Amino acid sequence: MRKDRLEAFSDGVLAIIITIMVLELKVPHGTGPEALLPLLPVFLSYVLSFIYIGIYWNNHHHMLHATRHVTGGALWANLHLLFWLSLLPFVTGWMGENHVAPLPTALYGLVLFMAATAYWILAHVLIAAEGADSFLARAIGKDRKGVASVMIYAAAIPLSFFEEWLAKAIYVLVALMWLVPDRRIEKHPPPAD
Amino acid sequence: MRKDRLEAFSDGVLAIIITIMVLELKVPHGTGPEALLPLLPVFLSYVLSFIYIGIYWNNHHHMLHATRHVTGGALWANLHLLFWLSLLPFVTGWMGENHVAPLPTALYGLVLFMAATAYWILAHVLIAAEGADSFLARAIGKDRKGVASVMIYAAAIPLSFFEEWLAKAIYVLVALMWLVPDRRIEKHPPPAD
Amino acid sequence: MRKDRLEAFSDGVLAIIITIMVLELKVPHGTGPEALLPLLPVFLSYVLSFIYIGIYWNNHHHMLHATRHVTGGALWANLHLLFWLSLLPFVTGWMGENHVAPLPTALYGLVLFMAATAYWILAHVLIAAEGADSFLARAIGKDRKGVASVMIYAAAIPLSFFEEWLAKAIYVLVALMWLVPDRRIEKHPPPAD
Amino acid sequence: MRKDRLEAFSDGVLAIIITIMVLELKVPHGTGPEALLPLLPVFLSYVLSFIYIGIYWNNHHHMLHATRHVTGGALWANLHLLFWLSLLPFVTGWMGENHVAPLPTALYGLVLFMAATAYWILAHVLIAAEGADSFLARAIGKDRKGVASVMIYAAAIPLSFFEEWLAKAIYVLVALMWLVPDRRIEKHPPPAD
Repeated sequence: MRKDRLEAFSDGVLAIIITIMVLELKVPHGTGPEALLPLLPVFLSYVLSFIYIGIYWNNHHHMLHATRHVTGGALWANLHLLFWLSLLPFVTGWMGENHVAPLPTALYGLVLFMAATAYWILAHVLIAAEGADSFLARAIGKDRKGVASVMIYAAAIPLSFFEEWLAKAIYVLVALMWLVPDRRIEKHPPPAD
Repeated sequence: MRKDRLEAFSDGVLAIIITIMVLELKVPHGTGPEALLPLLPVFLSYVLSFIYIGIYWNNHHHMLHATRHVTGGALWANLHLLFWLSLLPFVTGWMGENHVAPLPTALYGLVLFMAATAYWILAHVLIAAEGADSFLARAIGKDRKGVASVMIYAAAIPLSFFEEWLAKAIYVLVALMWLVPDRRIEKHPPPAD
Repeated sequence: MRKDRLEAFSDGVLAIIITIMVLELKVPHGTGPEALLPLLPVFLSYVLSFIYIGIYWNNHHHMLHATRHVTGGALWANLHLLFWLSLLPFVTGWMGENHVAPLPTALYGLVLFMAATAYWILAHVLIAAEGADSFLARAIGKDRKGVASVMIYAAAIPLSFFEEWLAKAIYVLVALMWLVPDRRIEKHPPPAD
Repeated sequence: MRKDRLEAFSDGVLAIIITIMVLELKVPHGTGPEALLPLLPVFLSYVLSFIYIGIYWNNHHHMLHATRHVTGGALWANLHLLFWLSLLPFVTGWMGENHVAPLPTALYGLVLFMAATAYWILAHVLIAAEGADSFLARAIGKDRKGVASVMIYAAAIPLSFFEEWLAKAIYVLVALMWLVPDRRIEKHPPPAD
């Protein structure tokens, strides 16, 4: 099974997700600042989700670069990840249009939680095929950042119903934590293809 | 004629189909669970169709990997398959928004039936060019799963008008049957490119 | 300048055009055949436009396969072709929703006319760079089918205002004429990359 | 880190942006010229934005062709550029539907300004990794056209509130200035990959 077609398909889906999210920014009818202002929360949600898709694309890129074999199970683990990321435009639009409501904020966190879990599953399906001594296994290591993200999202979901703004602040902070590129893989020499 | 551009174009179309389906999940106006609940059938239709596109992408990937030559006829057989799959977002939305109506369920089955038939045609156009002794011909074999799917969909379409829920259960069962990856091709060594 | 990125970008744009056209098939509110019937003209327009994009993709694929060098001018000639093809979803929707009106039928013909002209320009920009003795120049030859299509579309546009159905029949006939793959290039051996 | 996946992802995003912009051209309800006429400003905005995306794709293509190494910082500088370009469909639709209003024209200029700035940042992130003596650094040179564009957009934004038509004329003129392909890179031999 060839890795390049998996990468191409994932790139295609991520490129479409990152771009159709902007369709939630509906062209307003008025022409003044009062027409633009209500779009600000939708815009900020869009920025956050754009960064998240960028992070996933970046880390996915690194992880597959360090991978030699793609099994049938990895194809489905990858589709599972893309499924949850494909729901990001929906929850981005809902949270953006209802910027002080707890349920949209919680659902946004749920999608982030499921996507982070799906990424963790994909990483472990790939490592299982590569072997515990593989370059990928050593590069991913204990994956503290990935595990921490899953746990933080899990905490932010119930928090949305009490301190809704704090849950959002957490989503922003986790994104900032990931903006630092994954040095674990980058610092090692890539395996020969 | 080069196989890689056919794969790239198919990947592009499948990536767009799988992603624009989520646009049928319209952002609701309310912010409570009562705003989300009516979306549940649309969401479940989306999950089913996402899995179907994943199955087609996966099997298409395997089949073309085992193919050496792509003829002009294969290009059109491939476009014919993509045509029927491109109608999946429409029937997914219609079935999802009308979850006890027979006609949307029957039409969903019709699109699955036509896509499965188009896949069968594509497989046989490719085998005709590769030869009966080719790696692809042996890998596809009698294609019992493909033929069975076509017949099951054909039975589910009229069934939609009598036991609508049973037709839907059949669509789910056929998807589960295909989630098992196509071992016929995977177990053989791939041909040299 | 590299040919593969031009092909990849064109494939991407054509894949998106062919797929977003289906968004003009709006999910109906009713669940009976009377809800589906008004969509039939939109569906038929979609089928015709899908075939046209398929033809362009197919011929574009052949033409670039026979090309060795891509100049800056060819990039813009290619974008010019993609521009006119990008208008196909709009005119497909307008003609489909207004199936006996002359102006939408004429505008559909105008977009086909401009796209065919843009394809002709692209072919000649590529030939100019390859040379009159090149493989591409011999493969394209006098391009009778391309020139004929341009002239037929030019005749169909005014005809839309008198015999609207005849103009549509012409669009279908030209598509059928092109469904025969372009043997001129296929029968020659491809140049070494 | 591999350059080809960065190119493929950028091509995908640019192909989607250039194509979904046409969705702002909503299919009109009437069938006469009076139904088409109000779409003219939206159409002209679409043409301008299509040309701008074409220019960015073209220059991006050239710049990455001259690049040997893609760092983690370059991935994010590239995503930053794609972010601003992804807002082009929104401002194109808003400016097109409100063709004598100052704020939409200013916002269109702001997005062009931010995209041009992001392109400048990307160029300098790439040059920093390649080195001051690199092929890329010599090819980009002082980047007078890029710097001039940023300054011209900065002037056009406030101008929108006084002479709105002049700001639009400036956007068209800058596009025409860029339609001339970037000879700086094209005239040099490309580096070996």
